[in-house]
Amino acid sequence: MVGGGTDAFIGAVHRLAAFMDNQIELVCGCFSINPEVSKSSGKLYFLPEERIYTTYQEMFEKESKLPEGERMDFVTIVTPNFVHFDPAVMALDHGFHVVLDKPMTFTLEEAYKLKEKLDETGLTFALTHTYSGYPAVKHARKMIADGQLGKIRKIFVEYPQGWLSSKLEDTGNAQASWRTDPKRSGKAGCMGDIGTHVHHLAEYMTGLKVTELCAELNVFVPNRLLDDDGAAFLRFDNGAKGVLMATQIAAGEENAIRIRVYGDKGGIDWEQMEPNTLRVKWLGQPMQVLRVGTSLDSAVAAHNTRVPGGHPEGYLEAFANIYRNFALTVRARANGEEPTPEMLDFPGVDDGIRGMQFIETVVSAGYNDEVKWVKFGETI
Amino acid sequence: MVGGGTDAFIGAVHRLAAFMDNQIELVCGCFSINPEVSKSSGKLYFLPEERIYTTYQEMFEKESKLPEGERMDFVTIVTPNFVHFDPAVMALDHGFHVVLDKPMTFTLEEAYKLKEKLDETGLTFALTHTYSGYPAVKHARKMIADGQLGKIRKIFVEYPQGWLSSKLEDTGNAQASWRTDPKRSGKAGCMGDIGTHVHHLAEYMTGLKVTELCAELNVFVPNRLLDDDGAAFLRFDNGAKGVLMATQIAAGEENAIRIRVYGDKGGIDWEQMEPNTLRVKWLGQPMQVLRVGTSLDSAVAAHNTRVPGGHPEGYLEAFANIYRNFALTVRARANGEEPTPEMLDFPGVDDGIRGMQFIETVVSAGYNDEVKWVKFGETI
Amino acid sequence: MVGGGTDAFIGAVHRLAAFMDNQIELVCGCFSINPEVSKSSGKLYFLPEERIYTTYQEMFEKESKLPEGERMDFVTIVTPNFVHFDPAVMALDHGFHVVLDKPMTFTLEEAYKLKEKLDETGLTFALTHTYSGYPAVKHARKMIADGQLGKIRKIFVEYPQGWLSSKLEDTGNAQASWRTDPKRSGKAGCMGDIGTHVHHLAEYMTGLKVTELCAELNVFVPNRLLDDDGAAFLRFDNGAKGVLMATQIAAGEENAIRIRVYGDKGGIDWEQMEPNTLRVKWLGQPMQVLRVGTSLDSAVAAHNTRVPGGHPEGYLEAFANIYRNFALTVRARANGEEPTPEMLDFPGVDDGIRGMQFIETVVSAGYNDEVKWVKFGETI
Amino acid sequence: MVGGGTDAFIGAVHRLAAFMDNQIELVCGCFSINPEVSKSSGKLYFLPEERIYTTYQEMFEKESKLPEGERMDFVTIVTPNFVHFDPAVMALDHGFHVVLDKPMTFTLEEAYKLKEKLDETGLTFALTHTYSGYPAVKHARKMIADGQLGKIRKIFVEYPQGWLSSKLEDTGNAQASWRTDPKRSGKAGCMGDIGTHVHHLAEYMTGLKVTELCAELNVFVPNRLLDDDGAAFLRFDNGAKGVLMATQIAAGEENAIRIRVYGDKGGIDWEQMEPNTLRVKWLGQPMQVLRVGTSLDSAVAAHNTRVPGGHPEGYLEAFANIYRNFALTVRARANGEEPTPEMLDFPGVDDGIRGMQFIETVVSAGYNDEVKWVKFGETI
Repeated sequence: MVGGGTDAFIGAVHRLAAFMDNQIELVCGCFSINPEVSKSSGKLYFLPEERIYTTYQEMFEKESKLPEGERMDFVTIVTPNFVHFDPAVMALDHGFHVVLDKPMTFTLEEAYKLKEKLDETGLTFALTHTYSGYPAVKHARKMIADGQLGKIRKIFVEYPQGWLSSKLEDTGNAQASWRTDPKRSGKAGCMGDIGTHVHHLAEYMTGLKVTELCAELNVFVPNRLLDDDGAAFLRFDNGAKGVLMATQIAAGEENAIRIRVYGDKGGIDWEQMEPNTLRVKWLGQPMQVLRVGTSLDSAVAAHNTRVPGGHPEGYLEAFANIYRNFALTVRARANGEEPTPEMLDFPGVDDGIRGMQFIETVVSAGYNDEVKWVKFGETI
Repeated sequence: MVGGGTDAFIGAVHRLAAFMDNQIELVCGCFSINPEVSKSSGKLYFLPEERIYTTYQEMFEKESKLPEGERMDFVTIVTPNFVHFDPAVMALDHGFHVVLDKPMTFTLEEAYKLKEKLDETGLTFALTHTYSGYPAVKHARKMIADGQLGKIRKIFVEYPQGWLSSKLEDTGNAQASWRTDPKRSGKAGCMGDIGTHVHHLAEYMTGLKVTELCAELNVFVPNRLLDDDGAAFLRFDNGAKGVLMATQIAAGEENAIRIRVYGDKGGIDWEQMEPNTLRVKWLGQPMQVLRVGTSLDSAVAAHNTRVPGGHPEGYLEAFANIYRNFALTVRARANGEEPTPEMLDFPGVDDGIRGMQFIETVVSAGYNDEVKWVKFGETI
Repeated sequence: MVGGGTDAFIGAVHRLAAFMDNQIELVCGCFSINPEVSKSSGKLYFLPEERIYTTYQEMFEKESKLPEGERMDFVTIVTPNFVHFDPAVMALDHGFHVVLDKPMTFTLEEAYKLKEKLDETGLTFALTHTYSGYPAVKHARKMIADGQLGKIRKIFVEYPQGWLSSKLEDTGNAQASWRTDPKRSGKAGCMGDIGTHVHHLAEYMTGLKVTELCAELNVFVPNRLLDDDGAAFLRFDNGAKGVLMATQIAAGEENAIRIRVYGDKGGIDWEQMEPNTLRVKWLGQPMQVLRVGTSLDSAVAAHNTRVPGGHPEGYLEAFANIYRNFALTVRARANGEEPTPEMLDFPGVDDGIRGMQFIETVVSAGYNDEVKWVKFGETI
Repeated sequence: MVGGGTDAFIGAVHRLAAFMDNQIELVCGCFSINPEVSKSSGKLYFLPEERIYTTYQEMFEKESKLPEGERMDFVTIVTPNFVHFDPAVMALDHGFHVVLDKPMTFTLEEAYKLKEKLDETGLTFALTHTYSGYPAVKHARKMIADGQLGKIRKIFVEYPQGWLSSKLEDTGNAQASWRTDPKRSGKAGCMGDIGTHVHHLAEYMTGLKVTELCAELNVFVPNRLLDDDGAAFLRFDNGAKGVLMATQIAAGEENAIRIRVYGDKGGIDWEQMEPNTLRVKWLGQPMQVLRVGTSLDSAVAAHNTRVPGGHPEGYLEAFANIYRNFALTVRARANGEEPTPEMLDFPGVDDGIRGMQFIETVVSAGYNDEVKWVKFGETI
C-alpha cells in the first residue's frame, strides 16, 4: 500500500474492503511521506518492521527482489491525485499489479500513458469507482443490457454533498485541503472528486457513453480555487439525454447519490444511501421493489452479495466487491486460468481514461462564460 | 364555470377544491362547447336549467343582468390554454372576478393585456398554480424569507411524469391530444404544462426570480409536435443557481415533483407525493422532519391546514387553499375590508406573466441547436 | 348537524368531507349546547337564522314539519359519545337518516337498541370509521377477498398516538377532557377512541371477525381515569391470529395507523400517514408498490378516488368517501332504486355493534389482574 | 472455528465480520462433522493442512499444545444450538476464549453451567447478538441512559420474517431443517431463533429487564414441530410495558426488525433494514433524523462506525463490531491492560442466560391453552 497512514482517510476504507473476504493480506506498505507516520502506521497494521518502507520507490525495489510467494502481489495506491501516476507506473515496471483510487491520474495525458504501460506489461489494474460495486447497480446494468426497460431515453444522475459548504480548507481539514487545491487535485474540484463517480455510474449502469456535454460549474464559497458545484446536460451515444448534478455545497447532504434511468418501457431508481433497494417503475404496471439478497436474483447480483436479503450490505461491501473481483482475476491469471466475466467486473484503465476525459470536457464546457456543447474528450 | 363538463378532467378538480370549505357555491356554468354536454353536466351538478348556458358569452351577459346577490360573483375558467384569454377578458368586462387555470394565456402578449385589463377593472384574479397551495411549501417559503437557511445558493426543482411515454395523443386521449397540439397548448408542451409549475414553485418558495436560463428541450416520442422533456440551468437574481427538470416520458412516474433549496446554513427538501413532510437538513445539526399540523407551526401553515397532524392532507386541499384564499379576498373586498396577507396568498396575474415568460424563454433557449443563456422574458 | 360548533373539532372535518363532492348541503343545525355558540356557528356556516336551533329536539321537531324537499334529509351527529344514542334515536323517530361519529354509542345496550330502531324505521345509517374510506384499504380488502394473499394467517394492526403523553385533560383541552372522562367517553379511553378504529380496520380489510381476545390495558399518565394505552392478541374466525396495539402515550407520534396482513402467499402493508401507497409483498416474488390512481386498479378503488395518481388524496377524501357513498345510497333509495354494492360500501350499524363489543371485550379482558382469553361480545 | 464449512451459512458471516478490521486471523478450524467438508473448506480458507481438524476435540487438544503466539487465541463456535455447550466448555478448559452464536446453549441449565465455567477460567466470552452491534442502537442506548426520552413507558419490538411460510424443512433446506427440529434447536423455534434477538435488543437498548411476560406462540405451517410465530406482552422492571412480535411466516418479509421506545419526553424508532438512520420523535418538538457518521455523534457511535456519514454500513459491520470489541478486550487483557467500557461493549454470558430464560419463559407462557403472566426465568 502506498499512502493510507493513520492520519489518512481513504486508505482505511481500502483496507477494510480488502480484508473482508479473506482473499487479500497486507504484507508491506509505505503509508506516508512522513517516515514516522509510515512506521507507526505499519506497526498498528501488524506489519514486521522490515516491510514498512519510507518511500514507495524503496518499497517497489526491495519487494521486487523478494522471492515469489513472499513478495507482495499487487499494490494499492491511495495518495492524493497528483501522486497517482508515478507510483503506478513504477509498480507496473517492477511487475506489480495495481489498485488505484480515482480519479485515475492528474492529467488526461498521464491516463493515456498509464494505459500504454498496462498494455506493455500485461498486468492487472483496478480503479476504485466504488459505486459500481453495489449489487443493485450491477443488477440494474444487466436489466438494461437485457432490454427490460426498452430503449433508454433519459438519465438523471446526481451526487449532492454538503461538507464543503463552508471554507473547510482553511481550518486544517486535510481532506478539504488537497481536494480544493488545483496543484494536488487537478483541473476540477467537485467534478473531479464526485462528478467522476456519477459519470462513471451512469455509463456503467446503462452501458452507454457520453458523446458531448454542456455544463455550468460554480464556485460558491468565496476564494475557493476549484468548482464546488456544477451541473451538465449529457448526450449519449444512443440518443439518450441526461442531466448530471454534483455539488459539495448542498448543506446538510451526506452522499446522496441517486441515479434514475428511463427507457420507453420503464425506469429504474437507485439511491446509494439505501443501496439494497432497486425501485423499478413500469409503464402501465405496478412498481416493483427489488431487494438485494432476495428479488435481485441475477447471477451478477448474487456473485456480489454476501448475506441474505434483509441484512443490509453497504459501502464497504461494494468496495470489497472491487477488491474481491480484482483478487479473483489476479489469482486466476496467476494460475493460468481465464478469469470469468464476473471476476473481470471491476473498473479498469478505460474507465479511468473516461473519467479523465470527463474532467477535461466538463471543465472545458463549464468554466466558460459562454455555454457550449463540447464533444467528450475534447477541449475548447 | 367555463369548461369542466363531465367529459373533462381539471374542471372536476376545481369543483372539489372550491366546494370543500363551504365558501363557494356553483350557481351557473357553461360546461362545454357541446351544448348537450353542457346541459347534462349542469344538471348533474344540481343547477337549475336556466343557469346552464351554452356559450360563455351568453353566460356573462345574462348573469351580469341578474340582481346582485343572485348573480355569480366570479367565474372559473378551465378550458384548454387557447380559450383562456377571451373568456377571462369578457368576464372582467362584465364585472366578474376570475379564477383561471395555468398557463395563464396562449401567448405572452395576451398575458400582458390581461394584466392591463385587471388593472383597469380592479377585479380579483387567481391562477391555479396548485403546488404553491401546500402548507409545507408555504412554511418553507417563510423559513427562507426569514433567513433560516442563510443565503440561498442552489435550487433543484423537478417534475417527472411518465404518462406521455407513448404516443397517447393518437389513441383518442383528450388530455394528451390538446396538450401536445401547438394550436391548443401554445409554444411549449411539457414545459408549458408542467415546467411552468415547477418554475413557479421555485420562485414562490425562494422569493427569488430567475434572470436567465439555458435549456435543452427534447421530443422523445416520434412525430410528437411539442417537447415532452427538458432541462434548464437557472440563474437567480441573488446569484443562486438552479437546475430545473421536467419530463413526461419518465416511464412509470406519476407526479414526482420535488424541490430542494440549499442555503449556506441548511437545505430543505419537499416532495409533492408526500406533501405533509418537509425535510430540513442543517449544516452540522441533525436533520429535522417538519410535519403539517404539528411541527410546521408557522401561522401561514396553520391558516392553510384543515386537520390535525398525521391525518394527511393532499392535492385537493392544496387546490382548495387557492380557492379559499381567493374567496376570502373577494369577500373582504366586497365588505370594504382590506384582505390580510394570508388571504392574499394565492397566485395572480404577475405569476401568470412570469409563467408565460418562462415558456418564451425556455423555448427560445432550448429549441436551438446552439445552447445559449437567454435572459428571462427575452427571445433570441 | 348536531354538534360541530366553531369550538369543536370533528364537526369541521365532517363538514369538509360532506361538502367536497357537491352531493350534500348544510341546511340547518344545532351546533352546541350553548345557544350563543350554536347561533354564531350557524351564521358562519351561512345558515339562515331560523334554521339554527338551540336544541336537537327542537331541530328534529321543526324540521320534520317542513315540506319535503325543504326539510333536511339526514342529520350528522358529532357530539361526545354520551350524546350519540338519544339524538340518533330521535332523528330516526322523526324520519331522518343518520350519520354518526364512532364509537356508535355509550354502551353496548344502546348499540343493540339503535339497531332495533333502524330495523323498525328502515332508514339509512352511517358510522364514520374513516380509515375504511381510503381507496387503498378498499383495494386491499378486495385482494384479500379474491384470495390473492392465500389463507390469512397473521394480522398486525396498530394505532400509535402521542398527544395524551401528558395530562392534557387538566389544561383545559376540550378534546382531552371528554375523551378521558368515563362519564362522557364510556368504559374505555384509548381503546374506545382509537382501538375501535383499528379493530374495525382489521375486520373490514380482511373480511374476518375477531372471536376472542386477550388484552392488557394501561394507564400511564398518573391519575388519568381511563386507559391511555393497550394491546391485545386477537383470534379470528378463520384461525388467523393478530396483534392489536393502540396507544396515546407514544410521545411524538401523530396518527401512525398501520396494518399488515399476511397470508400463505403474500402480505400487504398499509400506513395511514402515506395512504396512497399499498405495499404488497410476495413469497418468492418481488414486492410491488400499488398506488392510488394508477396501479390500484380495482373498480372499488376507482370509485373512491377523485384525482389521478401522484396527486395525493388524504384523510378528508377518505372521510368524504363515507359521505358520498351514504349520500348516493340515500338518493338511490329516495328514487326507488337499489343502491349498488359500491354505494353501500360505508360502515353501518353492525360495524357499530362490533365496535361496542370490542370495547366491552377488551375492557373485560384487559383491566383484570389475571390475563384471560375473552370471547368477543362477552364479559367476564 | 468450529463449524462454518462451505456448506454452512452463519460461519461465512462470522469470517467476514472477523476479518474486516484486520484484528483477527483464521489460523485453524474444524469446519464440519464431515471430515471431507472440513478439509476442503479449510483449504479454501487458505489454511495449512495440519491445522484443519476433523473434530473439535482434536483441535482443542492439539492447539493447546502449540507454543504461545502460534496457537489460536480464541475459538468461534458456529454450530447448531445443540452443539454449543460442549465445545464451548472444552475450549474454555483448554484455555481458549470463546465466541459463540446465539442462542447460547440448548437448555437453560447449560447456560448456568457455562457461566460457572467462565467464572472459573476467567476467560473472555462473546455472544453474537448482532443487532446490538449497530452504532445507531448503541447511540439510542446512550440517549435513553442519559434520560433524553424521560421515563421509559412503552416498547414495541418486532422481527417479522417470511422465509418459513411454507414447509421448507421438507425440501432439504439445511437451515430450515435444524431450526425447526426440537432435537437440534431446543424448546423454541421462532422464539429461540429470532425472538431472542429482539428480546436482547429491547433490553440492550433500554437498559431495562423484562420481569414477566404473557405470550401466545403459534404453529401455522401444518406438522411443523416448533413455533413459527408468536407475540408477547412484556413487563419491565421500571414499570414500562412492551409488545414483542416475532414471526417467520410473514410472507414476503426479510428481516424487518424494528424497535420503538417511548418515554414521557419522546420516542425513538429504529429499523434494521435501514440501520444508519435513527428517528427521534419529541413531544412538542420537530422529529429529528440522526444519521450514522454525522449526527449520531456520541463517542460510542463513533467507536463503532468505520466510514463517514452517507456511506451506509450494514449487518456485517454491526457483526464486526462485536468481533472487534471482543478482540480489543482480549488483546488488552493479554497485555495486562484494563479494557475500556467501549471495548467491553459486546454481548456476553449474562446476555446468553437472559436469552435462555426468555426461551423458557415464553415457551412456558405461550404454549399453554390458558394464557398467563409468567415471571421471567420461571416456568409454570
